[in-house]
Formats: sequence, structure tokens, C-alpha cells
Amino acid sequence: MGKMQAAVLNKPLDMEIQKVKIPEPKSDEVLIKVHCIGVCGSDVHYYEHGKIGRYEVKEPIILGHELAGDIVEIGSEVSDLQVGDRVAVEPGVTCGRCEYCKQGRYNLCPEVRFMATPPIDGAWSEYVTIRSDFAFKIPDQMSYEEGALIEPLSVGIHAMERGKVKPNDKLLITGLGPIGLLTIKAAQIFGVTEIYCSDVVPFRRELAKKLGAVQVFDPTQDNIAEELEQITDGVGIDVAIETSGNGRAVQDALTLTKRGGRIVLVGLPAVSEVPIDITHLVDSEYDVYGVFRYANSYPTAIQAIANHDLRLEEVITDKYYLSDTREAVEKARNEKDTSIKIMIYTE
Amino acid sequence: MGKMQAAVLNKPLDMEIQKVKIPEPKSDEVLIKVHCIGVCGSDVHYYEHGKIGRYEVKEPIILGHELAGDIVEIGSEVSDLQVGDRVAVEPGVTCGRCEYCKQGRYNLCPEVRFMATPPIDGAWSEYVTIRSDFAFKIPDQMSYEEGALIEPLSVGIHAMERGKVKPNDKLLITGLGPIGLLTIKAAQIFGVTEIYCSDVVPFRRELAKKLGAVQVFDPTQDNIAEELEQITDGVGIDVAIETSGNGRAVQDALTLTKRGGRIVLVGLPAVSEVPIDITHLVDSEYDVYGVFRYANSYPTAIQAIANHDLRLEEVITDKYYLSDTREAVEKARNEKDTSIKIMIYTE
Amino acid sequence: MGKMQAAVLNKPLDMEIQKVKIPEPKSDEVLIKVHCIGVCGSDVHYYEHGKIGRYEVKEPIILGHELAGDIVEIGSEVSDLQVGDRVAVEPGVTCGRCEYCKQGRYNLCPEVRFMATPPIDGAWSEYVTIRSDFAFKIPDQMSYEEGALIEPLSVGIHAMERGKVKPNDKLLITGLGPIGLLTIKAAQIFGVTEIYCSDVVPFRRELAKKLGAVQVFDPTQDNIAEELEQITDGVGIDVAIETSGNGRAVQDALTLTKRGGRIVLVGLPAVSEVPIDITHLVDSEYDVYGVFRYANSYPTAIQAIANHDLRLEEVITDKYYLSDTREAVEKARNEKDTSIKIMIYTE
Amino acid sequence: MGKMQAAVLNKPLDMEIQKVKIPEPKSDEVLIKVHCIGVCGSDVHYYEHGKIGRYEVKEPIILGHELAGDIVEIGSEVSDLQVGDRVAVEPGVTCGRCEYCKQGRYNLCPEVRFMATPPIDGAWSEYVTIRSDFAFKIPDQMSYEEGALIEPLSVGIHAMERGKVKPNDKLLITGLGPIGLLTIKAAQIFGVTEIYCSDVVPFRRELAKKLGAVQVFDPTQDNIAEELEQITDGVGIDVAIETSGNGRAVQDALTLTKRGGRIVLVGLPAVSEVPIDITHLVDSEYDVYGVFRYANSYPTAIQAIANHDLRLEEVITDKYYLSDTREAVEKARNEKDTSIKIMIYTE
Repeated sequence: MGKMQAAVLNKPLDMEIQKVKIPEPKSDEVLIKVHCIGVCGSDVHYYEHGKIGRYEVKEPIILGHELAGDIVEIGSEVSDLQVGDRVAVEPGVTCGRCEYCKQGRYNLCPEVRFMATPPIDGAWSEYVTIRSDFAFKIPDQMSYEEGALIEPLSVGIHAMERGKVKPNDKLLITGLGPIGLLTIKAAQIFGVTEIYCSDVVPFRRELAKKLGAVQVFDPTQDNIAEELEQITDGVGIDVAIETSGNGRAVQDALTLTKRGGRIVLVGLPAVSEVPIDITHLVDSEYDVYGVFRYANSYPTAIQAIANHDLRLEEVITDKYYLSDTREAVEKARNEKDTSIKIMIYTE
Repeated sequence: MGKMQAAVLNKPLDMEIQKVKIPEPKSDEVLIKVHCIGVCGSDVHYYEHGKIGRYEVKEPIILGHELAGDIVEIGSEVSDLQVGDRVAVEPGVTCGRCEYCKQGRYNLCPEVRFMATPPIDGAWSEYVTIRSDFAFKIPDQMSYEEGALIEPLSVGIHAMERGKVKPNDKLLITGLGPIGLLTIKAAQIFGVTEIYCSDVVPFRRELAKKLGAVQVFDPTQDNIAEELEQITDGVGIDVAIETSGNGRAVQDALTLTKRGGRIVLVGLPAVSEVPIDITHLVDSEYDVYGVFRYANSYPTAIQAIANHDLRLEEVITDKYYLSDTREAVEKARNEKDTSIKIMIYTE
Repeated sequence: MGKMQAAVLNKPLDMEIQKVKIPEPKSDEVLIKVHCIGVCGSDVHYYEHGKIGRYEVKEPIILGHELAGDIVEIGSEVSDLQVGDRVAVEPGVTCGRCEYCKQGRYNLCPEVRFMATPPIDGAWSEYVTIRSDFAFKIPDQMSYEEGALIEPLSVGIHAMERGKVKPNDKLLITGLGPIGLLTIKAAQIFGVTEIYCSDVVPFRRELAKKLGAVQVFDPTQDNIAEELEQITDGVGIDVAIETSGNGRAVQDALTLTKRGGRIVLVGLPAVSEVPIDITHLVDSEYDVYGVFRYANSYPTAIQAIANHDLRLEEVITDKYYLSDTREAVEKARNEKDTSIKIMIYTE
Repeated sequence: MGKMQAAVLNKPLDMEIQKVKIPEPKSDEVLIKVHCIGVCGSDVHYYEHGKIGRYEVKEPIILGHELAGDIVEIGSEVSDLQVGDRVAVEPGVTCGRCEYCKQGRYNLCPEVRFMATPPIDGAWSEYVTIRSDFAFKIPDQMSYEEGALIEPLSVGIHAMERGKVKPNDKLLITGLGPIGLLTIKAAQIFGVTEIYCSDVVPFRRELAKKLGAVQVFDPTQDNIAEELEQITDGVGIDVAIETSGNGRAVQDALTLTKRGGRIVLVGLPAVSEVPIDITHLVDSEYDVYGVFRYANSYPTAIQAIANHDLRLEEVITDKYYLSDTREAVEKARNEKDTSIKIMIYTE
């Protein structure tokens, strides 16, 4: 078996390009030549801190899990894909046998092997294998970049499904990092037209407007409650989708939503506890939904990207070669005010 | 029009029996001779503090909203009920025209006129009127006491519906006041068999066991997390229903539930904010549902009480005459360790 | 009170313009100066046959129920609307108190008073009254025609909701009369992109393509099963929406849908029974949903029309003055191959 | 590997006891010593006709798929079960990777290997293997017979879930074969109390009453429509569950249900088409749900049987030894008026 380039994180802040073995696809897997692959906030977090919650980098690991590429080899039992297919990869391989898998909530599978979650290697490398049912063909007219962006877009799609979002819902999206911005796109896929957003970074707010937000707020300057009150004729937002993890934004989401409304929590707070007005939650008869990754979202994403002019690629602000992955991650880490999604290319 | 006895709250702690006018039913209302009527925690709260949230006792008010009795007069347009019918009363009359009413969530109707919520009079009196569609016939074999208990039982039924509770769900009910105890009954109505409960008061825990709880915990003594871990083979509770309003119980509900589980919040904390582990909520992909009163629950309750041997009346610990309402409320206020539901009788 | 022009159906085929009293709004009603009003298939059916199912024209009646206009007077209790407001009218006034209303399915209210359903007068007249909660303000930039089309569009929206249609569903719409064509628009509102249609009339198929259908079929010429098989890679349609009432189309809908798919039946067959392959329905574990009118759809429609470029008006093929209502109805009756929606104007 | 007894169907009506190899469990399978196993209508149908729909007996096959027994060997990767465990077997092994599996509707998996569905062998034999996630531990106090009956009971449970049955629904169950009778039990598990049933066979009707049906009808004698009209005060049944496959019963189910009601179709008609009043279905805004097998029902069944006194075994009318399987099947085939569930024992 040949060798390939891969960006290996030895320990926090210590990442280098190494020559490693090209993985061999098992009978039910495909081998993919990676074309491009995004940098996710979780990648940056492992790079910086070496752990997220209960997952810890104890041995060298390859990060990265937002990718598209070409199938170059298929396992002996693979029949629905072939060499040459362009594919987007859903990076978590689930067991298919546990209670969660059998009930259609495979994102909660305790046996999942998720790329770039220690100790599972990710895809900041030239090649990667995946079980064939997690490689999704993308149409000719779809770019690899769009293919790679399906992963973060899927979080937004899952937020729509968890939040039972309907076309006439008025949405507030708090936090405009890559997930927040792509959640605007997810909302549009579900027919939503009235999307309001908040973030502290001007560049992100501008991008949100370009992507279709009706109005954007700066939580440090604007009285969002009053603004929304006026915009919605005193009725309030139907659904709040919190993607920032900021404690204050979580509180806003759980306050600015109208009675009987839904709040979808996606962002993970850095602090261990956020003070919540439980009486308001109960009295308002809110639905609050946590979102953990996604399930069954790739077909939805592919169909929507193929049939709409979503202009997903506008969230890509920077491009790097695989050999410069370290620089890419440093950029993501240090320039959050101007960088959104950074894409890495194998060639 | 004649006069009747009523327990009038002039201002906090100042309640007296007065002679007031018997109300006259409008064309779409019925006049009910009250047989019995329960004391609710909210009644006690108005008695003590004169306000709950945005509702404030500014003028003398008659409290009480958990009642059953006999129809003694019907309005000119009432066709589905007649004099002599025994009825349970759903005490909130909604507009039927707002967005919430039209969507079937009439409990959120902003125009609701809810008995014993200032400035609307309640039913600690000999007679009361109600719009006919909120008076529900009860079968001959059902007692008036059961009829009056439908109101608090409805909160439990609504909790089941909000929480999408299924027969095989393992339930934890935190808080064993009247609502918590009747939620055990509501769970049984929905076919649930594995019900675990917690409360600090021994008498309540004993009653919970008598009513069908599989096991009860004392949060001051037991390690509930460990106990449930063992009972459920490490899987955890499917649904937690929090009825106490205690901050620690809210935290327990949002921690002890398994991944993908549901938490139904019914109790209103006395404190303005409760620190919540949002990361755990998101990572566990919880559903959290607030419960405000109930909707469409009376037919369910009546059918269940008629066809099961629910032994609802076991939650009634004390009985008073209407003339002794003040004593009844003082009992409810001061002897929470031994009193559950106190019932007031007009004769 | 003054007089107004109205098209009165005395008995089948006998319609004339009469001077009748302008109705007076009750305290909770508004009086609307009708701007334009559509001709519905049911209007034509009453005109021709004098009855639909259990509803029969026994006394002279004014037909018409798809309208928009201006409020010219409001009842004493109306506070949320004012004179001068441009409104679309939801033509069925429900009781708000029955089981169906209280559960949010007010379209099934047995006490509904629905315009142009005997013996309730409709709106082929200069003025009409409606309870204020069924008059919906439309934005300045929305045309009266769009306002009037909300009524038939609502059937499509309700079909989407009944059929739990999601953005990635592949849809087959059978029947391309006004309802079928507007269901294309409803599907687009819900984010659907893959819409296939069938109808025997070439003009309708062409219009469907203009409105956004991906492909259209002629059931007399095309092998729809084979075509869909090929288009969907052997998977089949996710949801079929049957709007024609044609027995063969009903059978197609219940055959061409994939396993686990949903079938929404909107069209009413002229024949009393249609032979159905029940074994296929059971073995495929289909969901089959009947659709009767709509509920809570006007806000969705108004928001969608305001924020999308739906080009609804393309379904309007003919325009008449109120004084020529008879000609309009005759046109609708006799020229189904070239007429879709006929609009009547009061001036 | 040793040998075991098995009832082998060579071709229609030609069944004999043979000595065959005891199957060897794969790494993710368990080997079960069968204790008892039921005779299903489908077994009888294959025995008589050699085919059901697209499935055909082309080579000798072992039938039977309703079983419980003891684990006697486990594959190398099996960790959640051990030798000696008493288990009920869910007889369809699904792929876990297709669209249906991933969405939680694994009963529609096209790759399913379902016992006793040609060409997959069933379990009328002394031993059988199954993938470990389809073997469910049953508690000590549960009988093997109850364990074996979980399979047909699961169809009833699935019918409840498909039909969104709630405790206060009034149910009509048409057809009182094993599935219909066990659907009474499934309804009770879901808290339903008002269960009405119909069947032409007196013995079955009597058994239904013993199992808890409130009232039973003979469709050849009773005017069920009128009876239900009277029982339900003119309102009608909320949910009809059709298990007979009889065309007239299908029509009854689709007529006797109230407006907005749900119809669950389980039985497979012998005829290819049943004439259906589609206009009534549409005008009533019915939900019609097909039921194909079941999914995720075993845990529900086991918990319910363990915690309720369901008296499931009352449906067992006959018991045979494995060596007499032919007689058992002939009995099931010829004595439908007195036999319900026939159980076969390996010793």
C-alpha cells in the first residue's frame, strides 16, 4: 500500500505534515481521494486544547471531517457506488443495531465512529475510507466545495427538523459563525423567509445579510427585544436557533421567543452552567430542543443544493493547501472576525 | 336574583365569608350549584402574597377553580346540557378566535378568562357560571370529588401529551405535591408502568407508593443518579417530569434523563433563574417542554376515571365546609408535610 | 342601509344580477367592499346541479367564496382591523367551541358557516360581511388578485401540512385544475423542488411547467410508472397529491408512491366507489390523508406571497365584471381546456 | 456440528420432520434452543399455497417465526447476551444501512432477512440462530409462551403507534383472529378502555369479550353502524383497526370512523381490489395507515407483559410437539372457528 500526506496532530499546538499509509477499504467501504475539506471549530478546539468534553487526544490524530472527493477504490461488497463517483462524506459511521439507530436517531448512537473525534482519524489527508452508505454521490454540476459544506449545513438542516420549522416561522438565529450562517441557508431550504440574526462581529452580520437575513442585530448595541417586538408587531419570534454557545445568547433565545414557541440549542457554552429563567420557559410553554450533529440530512442537502441557487460557497473565506494545514488552523484560531469557513485542498 | 355564600379574599391574609349575588348565566352559560371544590397551590399563593407573576389581587376576589357540581339553570342557547346534569368544570374560558385557539393550543389564549386568576372570580362559593362548552358531564358512578380532581389531574395529562409519553417510557416525577401525585395517575392512564418519584416529605413518598410508584427517593438522602443507573441498567430515565419548582429538582430532571430523552417542566421555581448545564442538554439532544395548564384533557380524564379504578380520592387528605374556607387555606399553607389536596364542600 | 348588486342563483342554471340589501356587520364583523372574487369548481357545480353531496340549493343563493377587498365598516367590538385595510377573506366561520375547533382542526367544525355552501350566501356581490378573525390584512404590495387566490392556494398548503411534506420530497401532483396548479405553488412554499405532474389537458400541463413543475405527464399517452421509475432511479415518488377526483388518478396515486410514502387525496371522485388495491397499500405501509378545505393557512400564504415571487396570477385566465357573472360561470363550465381560474371584478 | 429435528416444507402440503444441521452462530449471532413457537397465518398460507405475493417457496423451507427459547451459544463479538439467557426473538434481521433503517422504519428495509419468508428458513426446529440485537431477554417471571406471542402482539403495538392511538380513543377492531385479539391487548397497553370488536365467528367474539372488549358485533347479524352510533352518542369511533382482510370489513372501517378519525389497515384482502368510497374518505379528512409488520416494539411488549396482568396466553387454544407440526398446521388450516393461536413445543 502506498503512502499519502496527512496533517497529524501530535499534541495540542503540535501539528505536522507526515507521510502515512493510505488506508485500505474494507469490503463495505470505499476509498476516497479527498478534493477539499473544511476546518471546523471542533478541529480548532482539539488543536488548541487537546480535548472536547469527554473526548481527549491521547495519541496522534488526523483531524478534519467536512469533505468531498472522488471514489478511487471500492470494497468487494459495495454495489451502489463505483470508482469515479464524486461524493460528499457523512463522517460518522454508526452501528445500525442499537436502540437509537433502530429508532432513526442514529446521531445518538453510542457506538458511532466519528471522524476527527479521538481516537478516530479524520480526513486532513489525501485519502480516506468510509463505509459506503456514508458516501453520497453528488451531481456533476455541484462543486466539491459545496459537497464539503454539506457537513456543517447538515447541522442547520437538523436544527430545522428538530425545531419543526415551517415556512411561515419567523426565525432568530443567534451566532453567525459557519454554523449560524449555514443555518440561514438551511432555513431557506425549508421555505423560511423571515430570518433575523445576531452576532457581535460586523463582518459576519454583513455576510448574513448577503446570504438572505432580513435584518441583523449587534447584541452589544441593539435592543434586540425591542427591535423584534416592533418587527413582529408585538408577537415575537416563532423559533430561536442558538448557535453561538454564548450564555447571553442562550438567555436571549429563551426570552425573545413568543409564547408556545420553539428554541433550538446548537452552540455549546464554554461555561458549565447558564442561569435560565425556568418560570418564563414553563409559563410560555416553550419547546426547547438540543441538537447533536444530524441524521438523514445529506439527501436533503444534496437535493436542495442541486435545485436552488444557494450560493453556499460565500461562507468560504480562505483556502489552503493540505501542506499548509497548520497555517489554516492558526488562521481559524486567530482571525475569527474575518474568517468564516476555511477550506483545505489536497492539490 | 338571590344571594349565596362565598369566600372573598379582600387582600392578602384577609378572607371572609360574605353574602354575594348569585351570578346569572348568559345565553351560552350554565349556572352550577357547586358540590365540592379543591384548594390549589395558586389559591394559597394569592391568599398569602396577593400576586403570582403578572397577576395581582387589586380588588376583592373569590378564589378556587377545581370544582364539580350540578347544573341548576341553563342559558337560552345551551342545548347540549340540561338542568340536573352533574358536571366537572374546566375553569378557563378561551376566545376561540386567536391564533393559539385556532391551532388547538387554547391554553395559551391571551384572552382567556381563568377562574381565580385576578380579576376573574373563582368558585369558592355556592354557585358559579361557566360557558357551556367548559362544563363536562360526568357519569353517575363518578363522585363529585373525582370531578373536582379532574382539574389538577389535567395538568398531569397535559404533561403526558407534551412529553409524548409512551407506555414503555421510564418516568421520573420530581415533586409529590397534588400535581406530582396526580401525574402518577396521569402516567398510568397513558399505560406507563415504570414510575419513579422523588420528594423530601416522607408522607408524600408513602402516598406515591400507594398510588403506584415503583420506587420513591428522598433527594436529601438518596443518590438518585446512582439508584436510577442501577434500576435502568445504566440506560437512564426516558422522561423526567418536574413538578416541584425546586431548582435542584429542575437540575436533576435535566441531568438524570437519558440521551435523546424528554424533560417536562411543570413546577414554577420561586427563584428567578436556575443554573442549567446547557452543554449537557445540547449534547444529550434533549427535548424540554414547558407545561402551562392543559387543553382538551377533560374528556380524556373523564373516560379514564370512569373505566379504571384510579383511586384518585386518595390524594384528598382534608375536608372543610365552605364556611371554613379560611381554615382550609391556612391548613394548606401551614401543613404541607401532611396535607395534599384539601376539598371544600358547600354543604 | 343601501343596496348592492349581487349575482343570485335562483335555481340551477338560473342566475341573475339583483339589487339586494348591503349586509350590516355585527359587533364582531367587518363589512368589506369586494374588489375581486374567483370562480371555484364548487360554484360551477352548484350552478349546474344545485347540490354537492348533502348540501342543496333550496332557496336563492349568492355563490362565490374566493375574495379580497377593502374594509369599509367595522363592528363595535373589532379592534385589530380598521376601515381602509385591504384584506383577504377566509370564508368559513367556525364555532370555536366544538371538539374539532378546540383541537385545532376547525375545518371539521360541524357548526361552520361557509360562504356559498347552502344556505349561506357567498360573495359574488359588491359587499360582504365576515367575522373579523377571518379577515386577514394583506400588505400594500400584494394585489387583490393574489389575495383572492389565497383561498384555493390554502387547499394546497393544507395538503402539504396533512402530507407532512418536506423540502426533499419528490412530489407527484395528479390533476392540474386550479387546485392542482396552485398546489405546485404550495409545494414551492414548503421548499419542494422536485415536482412532477399529470393531466390530460395540454394547456394545463404547459402552465404547470411554467409554474415550476420539473416534468409533466399525459396519462393518456405516457407510462407514468416507467417514467417516474427512471427519474427517481427506481425509488419512486415520496408523496402523491391527487387533486383531480379521477378514479384512475386516485389509483395511480396509490400505486406510484414508494414504500412508506404518503398519499394526499384532495379531489372528490364523481363515482361513489373507486376500486383500491388495499394489499398494496398495507404492504407498502402507506399513509393516506384526506384533505377537507384548510385550517390556519392564511398567515402562511400571505407571508409566502409577500416574500417570494410566486407569480400566482398566472393561473388567472379570464376576467369578468360582476354584472357578467353568468357568462363567467358558463365559461368555467364549458371551456375547461383553456380556462383555469376566472376572476370576477366588482368594478 | 450436530443435527436437530426440523419441520421442512418441501412443497405445498408436503411437510415432514427431518434431521438437519444445527446452524452455527456467526460472530454477531446467538444460537437459541427453541422452547416454543407459534403457528402464524402466513405459515399456513405458505403451507397451502406455496406463496404470498412476491414471495414463493421454490426450495424446501423451514417455516415458523414466533418463538422464545434459551441461548445456548453466543458468537465471538456478542457482549450483551450470554448463554442461559431466556429470549424472545424478533424474526426479521435488517441491514441497518438503507434509507428506511436509518429513518427508524426498519420494517420496510428491502434487505431484511425475515424468518419463514422464502428463501429464509424459519424456526420450526430445535435450534435457530439470530443476530444478537434481535434476541430480547425476557424476565424470569415471563413464560416462554408469552415470549413467543410478542411477535404477533407486536403487530398490534405497531398498529397503535401507526394510528397514534391515545388512551381516550374509542376503537373498533374488525377481525378477531390472533392478530385482532392481540390488538385488544396492544390497545390496553396503550391505555385504551373503549374497545369494540367485530367478527363472524362466535368463539372469537366470546374470547374478545374475555380479553376486555366492551362490546362485540357479528357483522352478519348486527347493524354495527347503528350500534356504534348509539354507543358513542352519534359521534362515532375514533380509530378503526382492520385486521381481517375482508373487503366488507375494510369498507366498514372506512365508513364507521368519525370525521377526522384514523383507520389502520393490517389485514391483507384476498381480492386484488376493494371498492372504496373515496369521497367519504376525503370529506371526512381521514388518516389511513397501512401496517407492515412492526419496528421497535419488542421492548414495549416485554415491559408491558412484565408489569401488567395481560393474560396473553388465553389466545393459545392448541399445543403440539414439533414432531407433530404437520397436524398443528392442518388444525390451523381447517378449524378456524375454534382455533386461535396454536403453539408448537420442541419437547
